[in-house]
Amino acid sequence: MSVVRTLHHYPLDPASRQVRLALGEKRLPFSEVIVRYWEQPPEFAALNPAGVPPVLVEVEDGKTLVVCETRAILEHLEERYPEPPLLGREPAERAEARRLAQWFDRKFDAEVGGSLLHEKLEKRLLGLGAPSLTNMRAGREALRHHLLYLEKLLQTRDWLAGRRLSLGDMAAAAHLSVIDYLGDLPWRDFPALTAWYMKLKSRPCFRPLLADRQPGLTPASHYAELDF
Amino acid sequence: MSVVRTLHHYPLDPASRQVRLALGEKRLPFSEVIVRYWEQPPEFAALNPAGVPPVLVEVEDGKTLVVCETRAILEHLEERYPEPPLLGREPAERAEARRLAQWFDRKFDAEVGGSLLHEKLEKRLLGLGAPSLTNMRAGREALRHHLLYLEKLLQTRDWLAGRRLSLGDMAAAAHLSVIDYLGDLPWRDFPALTAWYMKLKSRPCFRPLLADRQPGLTPASHYAELDF
Repeated sequence: MSVVRTLHHYPLDPASRQVRLALGEKRLPFSEVIVRYWEQPPEFAALNPAGVPPVLVEVEDGKTLVVCETRAILEHLEERYPEPPLLGREPAERAEARRLAQWFDRKFDAEVGGSLLHEKLEKRLLGLGAPSLTNMRAGREALRHHLLYLEKLLQTRDWLAGRRLSLGDMAAAAHLSVIDYLGDLPWRDFPALTAWYMKLKSRPCFRPLLADRQPGLTPASHYAELDF
Repeated sequence: MSVVRTLHHYPLDPASRQVRLALGEKRLPFSEVIVRYWEQPPEFAALNPAGVPPVLVEVEDGKTLVVCETRAILEHLEERYPEPPLLGREPAERAEARRLAQWFDRKFDAEVGGSLLHEKLEKRLLGLGAPSLTNMRAGREALRHHLLYLEKLLQTRDWLAGRRLSLGDMAAAAHLSVIDYLGDLPWRDFPALTAWYMKLKSRPCFRPLLADRQPGLTPASHYAELDF
């Protein structure tokens, strides 16, 4: 089976990062196209009418499969390339991994990404002016609240969804790593979370993310360090 | 296999409606608990720390499985009770059904639900005062834009994701039916969409939704009619 795989993504996009991490864990090779999605390139709109990354394209035996929307891509990868499993095998494990992943995409993304990421990154990309300090403060407060919940989970679990690495961890790592790039993660207050993140950071799937650089935006000094 | 199944939901919540439709299509019996989630009942927070419906609870052989977050519940139902399939069998069908479902939950919900539903329903539930006409206008504009896209899809497809009824249709019907309850769907401008909705509305899975009544909020006169 020879599949030619392309991921259309943006480096500091948490949704894209989840897919890069899953492809890395499953050791699936892919070529990359960086999408400046805010410029609405027509060739990208033809792939995904919603106009947002990530989009996965797989060509096999002359047949092209286009997969849009994060959860659709990750479910597809899990079905098509089940090893190593990133959802677990039991219904309860799978439910928990998916709960966390969707919670990050729905709640964390709206409350933390929608403020910190929007103010510090999107406004810059879109030329929307200076970041709002009020929004950033609201984002940092929501972040701290959510980190407390994750810290509690990790006090009794090896990985976020339980005993095994899962798409729940990929979702968390993708969202948190972007906030960490921006220097807004108060790691020292969350020891269990820090230990978990170091464990993830040292996996080969994480390396490409640590090499990402956003033009004009220097990452926090510890961003790419494995021991911080 | 005897499963005792309970769905914690709210009648006019689009996320909850998707699960009710899927349970109906799969003819899975369940008992219902209506959650007044905005009051943050502690027994519900114990089930879902995120505090939002729907939550599915299945008890089998003394083992309890709690599934939170819409997509997690629907993927679980599909894996556990594969007949009738609501994602299709081919990777391309599955990808398309999931793309549409996530698009509704992410984009449609934010742009249309977040304005029309928020102004007309949530503000009433939460006691947040009168609806903002500006927001409602923005919601109606976004709605029209998105309906045009769906109309185009349905001009060449039997169902939203292709030849078969799928979770894409369930997501669309769930979101649109709530807007329809509020009387904000300009059906006459979208004939293919109207035909598709009538087809869905006449299925047994839809009946419980048509019987829903929100206290103090009368549905549009055609809401429960099968031929409108």
